[in-house]
Amino acid sequence: KTLNEVLFFPSEVACVEHVFTSLPRSCLCPLRHGAETSLSRLLRHILSASSSLDLCVFAFSNVNLSRAVLALHARGVTVRVLTDKDYVAITGSQIGVLRNDGICVRCDANSVYMHHKFALVDGRLLVTGSLNWTRTAVQSNTENVVVTEEPDLVRPFVQEFNRLWESNDPA
Amino acid sequence: KTLNEVLFFPSEVACVEHVFTSLPRSCLCPLRHGAETSLSRLLRHILSASSSLDLCVFAFSNVNLSRAVLALHARGVTVRVLTDKDYVAITGSQIGVLRNDGICVRCDANSVYMHHKFALVDGRLLVTGSLNWTRTAVQSNTENVVVTEEPDLVRPFVQEFNRLWESNDPA
Ligand SMILES: [Zn+2]
Ligand SMILES: [Zn+2]
Repeated sequence: KTLNEVLFFPSEVACVEHVFTSLPRSCLCPLRHGAETSLSRLLRHILSASSSLDLCVFAFSNVNLSRAVLALHARGVTVRVLTDKDYVAITGSQIGVLRNDGICVRCDANSVYMHHKFALVDGRLLVTGSLNWTRTAVQSNTENVVVTEEPDLVRPFVQEFNRLWESNDPA
Repeated sequence: KTLNEVLFFPSEVACVEHVFTSLPRSCLCPLRHGAETSLSRLLRHILSASSSLDLCVFAFSNVNLSRAVLALHARGVTVRVLTDKDYVAITGSQIGVLRNDGICVRCDANSVYMHHKFALVDGRLLVTGSLNWTRTAVQSNTENVVVTEEPDLVRPFVQEFNRLWESNDPA
């Protein structure tokens, strides 16, 4: 059956350490443990990438989502990040962290705002919605994320990502 | 077959008069005529409502989208609008226009931002994405809108709309 899932935010505040490490009871932080939340579901979908992650997001400052992207890169997954030219230099932006890790990042210079918030996992799974990848969006805003494998939805986003990626080639 | 469609923005600039009036060649404006664009497709999906439109949008200043909502209301379609408490008073906001027309509007007062941008047409068709219903978003930004009848995606949004609507009852 084709995966179709909707995540709503704000996400319940809970520790997401278990998404990154399989060790039980390994975390001593004061947050609630063992809960599946919208954030933990989102992280699991991102971390499910085995070959590629194409990320197209206006604002990226969430450290948990950054950790997930860095984990994929460390694992050999091909990561491409397209982001807005103005947001990239904002305090707390994780884009510099990703670049310093060797991840290929391009900034959209062609539009007023590059306002997308989507990710493509292995070119197969689409993660898209209203949610910017920020701490405020995850913890405080009313937001949605659609997660789908429906080919009629995934295919246009794959094409759009490739089009934007090529049209913002800095070379 | 279940409808699944993706619209990308910025939309090509073209006259959308033909979406509202069936008269051919009725418009004398200087814009290009007869073109189907992302905006005209979006308007057609909204205008396809026959019984209800539930709209949950952070920012609403686009006059074409406002005209579509007013047309539905005039036709007897039940319209409910949920919007962000801070954006409602911004210059150009169409929320006052909708209220003056007798449309039921509620403001989300419970979250930092009510950042959703989705509409439910007859509780059957979901229209959701990164696009705020503003002129800048439609004409200048890089944006997406997913249009789907997939029940596994529509159902959670129907529940979420009803939950937010009830929890923001001003009475
Ligand atoms: Zn912990
Ligand atoms: Zn015209």
